[in-house]
Amino acid sequence: MSSFSQKMDQYLADIQQELDRQLPVTGQEYDGLLQAMRYSVMNAGKRLRPMLALEFCRMCNGEEKAALPFACAVEMIHCYSLIHDDLPCMDDDDLRRGKPSCHKVFGEATALLAGDALLTKAFDLIAGSDLAARYPQRGIEGVKLLSRYAGADGMVGGQVIDLACEAHDGKDSEAFVTPELLSKMHELKTCALIQSACELGAVAAGASEKQRLAAREYGKYLGLAFQLVDDILDVTGTVEELGKPIGSDEEQEKITFIQLLGLDAVQKMAEEHTRKALEALAPFEDADFIKELTASLLQRKK
Amino acid sequence: MSSFSQKMDQYLADIQQELDRQLPVTGQEYDGLLQAMRYSVMNAGKRLRPMLALEFCRMCNGEEKAALPFACAVEMIHCYSLIHDDLPCMDDDDLRRGKPSCHKVFGEATALLAGDALLTKAFDLIAGSDLAARYPQRGIEGVKLLSRYAGADGMVGGQVIDLACEAHDGKDSEAFVTPELLSKMHELKTCALIQSACELGAVAAGASEKQRLAAREYGKYLGLAFQLVDDILDVTGTVEELGKPIGSDEEQEKITFIQLLGLDAVQKMAEEHTRKALEALAPFEDADFIKELTASLLQRKK
Repeated sequence: MSSFSQKMDQYLADIQQELDRQLPVTGQEYDGLLQAMRYSVMNAGKRLRPMLALEFCRMCNGEEKAALPFACAVEMIHCYSLIHDDLPCMDDDDLRRGKPSCHKVFGEATALLAGDALLTKAFDLIAGSDLAARYPQRGIEGVKLLSRYAGADGMVGGQVIDLACEAHDGKDSEAFVTPELLSKMHELKTCALIQSACELGAVAAGASEKQRLAAREYGKYLGLAFQLVDDILDVTGTVEELGKPIGSDEEQEKITFIQLLGLDAVQKMAEEHTRKALEALAPFEDADFIKELTASLLQRKK
Repeated sequence: MSSFSQKMDQYLADIQQELDRQLPVTGQEYDGLLQAMRYSVMNAGKRLRPMLALEFCRMCNGEEKAALPFACAVEMIHCYSLIHDDLPCMDDDDLRRGKPSCHKVFGEATALLAGDALLTKAFDLIAGSDLAARYPQRGIEGVKLLSRYAGADGMVGGQVIDLACEAHDGKDSEAFVTPELLSKMHELKTCALIQSACELGAVAAGASEKQRLAAREYGKYLGLAFQLVDDILDVTGTVEELGKPIGSDEEQEKITFIQLLGLDAVQKMAEEHTRKALEALAPFEDADFIKELTASLLQRKK
């Protein structure tokens, strides 16, 4: 087994254990809520965001284990956004990672509230961590950063642009959904949270401003590449690999860069963004793992 | 004008100004989201929670103005919970404070996301405040406290119990909806956020553990009294006063303490909780304003 796979497995195990610890089902009158939260978090997700947080912490000479609550906070935000995204008033998706989505199992109201509770809990993970007790300033920075990247001027703003694009399907879509608007949407909807993961790792390590900036830059380009690969897989992947229907973008008349520019051009864009992400890693000495991770995300099949 | 009314008007003006400052509409592609957030926050709410936060800060010898972001963070949590509560998959309410509810104006998806964004923003208000920059420890305590009271083991847990009670309408309701379960529901759904407001004010002032405990105790009993008065007004109030339909609890076959114990007994319970709330104020020397506020909430007509 390569040292890359070993390290990745170790990260995954640590993340899984921390999430498990943070999401107990405690025999309360509201256990259905706690079960819905667990259901949506304790699955076979890629855990890309928390892994990036841990690795940036390590690259900035911080203690990876101490950054686990910061890392898992980002994952909870990611999971809440998927629950709300799947709701009937949003994308109305019955499947998530090959399993029934949260509201199909627990009902819409409980799914809505499970999302709210995960979002709320994310900030407790950071503020209630040992790291924040030892370094309150890092805790404060972490909360500020996560709320800004995840909120109206970050991920949620991107979701609203996405809704606006979908509302313009049909004949006026091409005038509305410009490459500029799509880029803005990706930067907010996808990149912001990935950036927050990278920068949170740096913050957990008490990194320099220069390192934080590099983490943010890396996250932006990785996020852009990641979203384009997602769009490509929606066209070229198989339902078994993805755990969700193929061609769902086209079926929903969703405009992506593929419709605007074609598959080859999008593949080239993804490669270009990946190259820029790798360039942003210059300030970090020991970046072998993250370089391999970055390259593997470009090649992924799911 | 009494000094009580003067102080209350001053608090209201300060809170309104801070909320206005924190919710700009900035000409972004996602301005619809920012407008939905403002619509649901910048209305004629009672602002009870932020007012309590400011007053507890003052009573603990803190700077009220410095606590404004802490106070408004609680109000944002309150407003998000109302937006999500009104959604069709929850209470399906078309009216809120006499105006169309958020999703009636902006659509369900935007309302859902506006709630998410307000919840997210609340934590930025605390962590990004001048107070947290000067006293990171108070910022950390504030975030921890708010996320715990607002989350699964607090307000959201209470909403889930509420849903479960509503699901048991009809003939088996009385076996399920016991006074104990109703009390638990109120403690989580209503009291938790009011408690967090009181305690956040104390935390903003750097109060002693004894003062924090008293703030929490006061908040619990005030919250219990507040909820009972709400239930009473749903039976005895007028639509003009409340800005929402009267008898909506009964119409929704919602079991309240009034069905279980009768109007007179509930009035007495509200008085008893109010008395206990006033008792909890013993550690505070200058408590005239909050005593008058507490008494006025028992007499309120809306």
